[in-house]
Amino acid sequence: MSNDALRIALLGCGTVGTAVARRLVDHADEFASRVERPVEITGVAVRDTSKPRPESGLDPSVFTTDAEALVRDADVVVELMGGIEPARSLLLTAMEHGASVVTANKALLGEDGPRLYETAAEHGVDLYYEASVAGAIPLLRPLQVSLAGDSVERIMGIVNGTTNFILDKMDRTGEALDDVLAEAQELGYAEADPTADVEGYDARAKAAILASLAFHTRVAALDVSCEGIMSITADDIRAARKMGCVVKLLAICERVRNGRGDQSLSVRVHPTLVPRSHPLASVHDAFNAVFIESALAGEVMFYGQGAGGDPTASAVLGDLVQAARHKVTGSRGPGESAYADLPILPLSQATTRYAIRIEVPDRPGVLAHVTNVFAGQGVSIESMRQGVRRSDDGLATLTIATHAATDAALARTVDQLRLLDDVSTVTSVLRMEGI
Amino acid sequence: MSNDALRIALLGCGTVGTAVARRLVDHADEFASRVERPVEITGVAVRDTSKPRPESGLDPSVFTTDAEALVRDADVVVELMGGIEPARSLLLTAMEHGASVVTANKALLGEDGPRLYETAAEHGVDLYYEASVAGAIPLLRPLQVSLAGDSVERIMGIVNGTTNFILDKMDRTGEALDDVLAEAQELGYAEADPTADVEGYDARAKAAILASLAFHTRVAALDVSCEGIMSITADDIRAARKMGCVVKLLAICERVRNGRGDQSLSVRVHPTLVPRSHPLASVHDAFNAVFIESALAGEVMFYGQGAGGDPTASAVLGDLVQAARHKVTGSRGPGESAYADLPILPLSQATTRYAIRIEVPDRPGVLAHVTNVFAGQGVSIESMRQGVRRSDDGLATLTIATHAATDAALARTVDQLRLLDDVSTVTSVLRMEGI
Repeated sequence: MSNDALRIALLGCGTVGTAVARRLVDHADEFASRVERPVEITGVAVRDTSKPRPESGLDPSVFTTDAEALVRDADVVVELMGGIEPARSLLLTAMEHGASVVTANKALLGEDGPRLYETAAEHGVDLYYEASVAGAIPLLRPLQVSLAGDSVERIMGIVNGTTNFILDKMDRTGEALDDVLAEAQELGYAEADPTADVEGYDARAKAAILASLAFHTRVAALDVSCEGIMSITADDIRAARKMGCVVKLLAICERVRNGRGDQSLSVRVHPTLVPRSHPLASVHDAFNAVFIESALAGEVMFYGQGAGGDPTASAVLGDLVQAARHKVTGSRGPGESAYADLPILPLSQATTRYAIRIEVPDRPGVLAHVTNVFAGQGVSIESMRQGVRRSDDGLATLTIATHAATDAALARTVDQLRLLDDVSTVTSVLRMEGI
Repeated sequence: MSNDALRIALLGCGTVGTAVARRLVDHADEFASRVERPVEITGVAVRDTSKPRPESGLDPSVFTTDAEALVRDADVVVELMGGIEPARSLLLTAMEHGASVVTANKALLGEDGPRLYETAAEHGVDLYYEASVAGAIPLLRPLQVSLAGDSVERIMGIVNGTTNFILDKMDRTGEALDDVLAEAQELGYAEADPTADVEGYDARAKAAILASLAFHTRVAALDVSCEGIMSITADDIRAARKMGCVVKLLAICERVRNGRGDQSLSVRVHPTLVPRSHPLASVHDAFNAVFIESALAGEVMFYGQGAGGDPTASAVLGDLVQAARHKVTGSRGPGESAYADLPILPLSQATTRYAIRIEVPDRPGVLAHVTNVFAGQGVSIESMRQGVRRSDDGLATLTIATHAATDAALARTVDQLRLLDDVSTVTSVLRMEGI
């Protein structure tokens, strides 16, 4: 076996890149033992080479602005710049020149994954992205490899730490979303522009990656129905509590079987009522957790930190060791598996349970009219709870939990409720899972 | 690529073997897609071929009593017979003849793992054993591969479902161990001879496997200090509850650093007080969970079913797909990694916190005498709680929680307490973790 060091190129040197570099430098002997060959950072592409980066532990001479040249001469390229371009072009160039690739770039995978997989396959290199979903939690490899002999039926994941922090805080303190969001921004749990998190776009890209691996089907981010948390009110959280539930933003990927045995997928992100007894309900703060149901293994849960420099570096370095080992032994890990090619259901055909809160006048006949609307759409009511009539407007809150129904049937039900004289307002409609 | 089917040999056809066979038969197309070659069960070694096994879905002609011939002509051998011999000889023969091997046999790995690893390395085949620890939970591969760039500092695992069922039941109902054990036997959660579970031997073999993978060091079952749950009383559980704790049988594997920066390992199995707020405390019934602390990833937890035919089959089939893929591509997975070769500390040098319950007469000066004993051994007291004096014998229960101390210092402390006139009985000594 050659003893030449494996050449590692880093693209980007922010928090994660610095943690990755530091670890590789400080634990060089350990990495050499695990890879069975020394590994060496031959270059780090950055925008500004004049900025001192002592915390990386790297010699200043390895920093370069010429990422293009760097990726043409590496054994493994680690991409931590984020965004679509130039990350995509650089990864494609790297693979075309024989480098294996490690990335944490969920946006790129969600948008153009298949092109990356195909390039990896064509050039016989590895494409790893464990860090792209649920940060430090070893999740994608278990899903892709360990459960490869099983059949995943359903995944429910808390995969966005920012929104979990916000919803958990709202649940604990009763505060309004805007207040908690502002606090999350102060603490660094939410970005100045929180759109990608609170609108669910981040979770959507991760749902696409999870569904692709679990169901052997190409799922792009835009295939995933997505609803964020901005409309969740302190009242919603309070109502959830009364029902013994918490509100979580879940990425849900499930195999759906129709009566003829045909299979399809429902992949969606939305705020969801989860019973407090469910393992996902006790995931607090900015932690992530992914709950998997499979035919043989039953229920399995993975829990840990979803973000942060060190946790993300842990996942990146695990991939790096694996890709480097393969370079040493001349093998490669499993590539894309999309043989099942299942159709993806539109949200309207997704089936779930709902909790609907409406404001109604407290007078005889109202309940009959309301329940008739549900019956007319074939939506079966599981329970109904009427609050106390308020003295100011004479209205009472009615909370209705349904049995499983399609999103389309529910939408028609809500439309009709809105037209009903007896319904003053439809205050909220939330999906329920894990019951 | 050749399209000849890969030849799979099963050794044993009990609950797990039947579930494995059934899945391979019923989902042949799926396995062919995932492996990129058809897989075929060419033989199943059993003691009695005349016994009908329709639930396996296999043709009766594949059953054989000639395991020796079977393993000489297979691509992948799946060993589910358990015990040391003939399993060991058959696996060695299989690997010598070029077959990769999948096993759930923790006893064999705990006793003679290195010989198996060396044979696998020598013949360039895979040796996988995901099912040997925590059944369905994808755990060993994440530990070995996903965390390969990180540094595991500590593992605390509930890896024996039987004892967790018993301790959880005792906590919920206040019943005595003997009663709950009898019930567990009736329900099939405990065997007629429960020794391996309740004495901690099963957990000990699993601790050895976890420590070997996490710390790149050979650890055999007999290197692991082991204490079972038979001495745990309803009073212990009640006292734990008063301290805000539950009692769990934990497999603990930790990296220990001394003042000079030298590293060693402490690997042990014992009943442990765990605070109710710790994620491991909410692992109920016969479920398993493994909590890992590592330098970069922080805290990660894996949770799921630890035993049962289908869950174990899930892990076995994941290994089988991986080994079969490697046969198709001519590669192999990571072999044994024992480069760190860390020394294993004797239990006397393990450092942990303790909760000690003693019976003392309620008279002046007793507390001073008792605390002097601790001080004399350098064991620092964290808290002390005295119960109400009982009218029948004039004694009161004193519960003392210590700061971290070595097992040796604690043992000397307990010896001296026993000699003290002021101490009527040392009722129990339990270790505390996760605080």
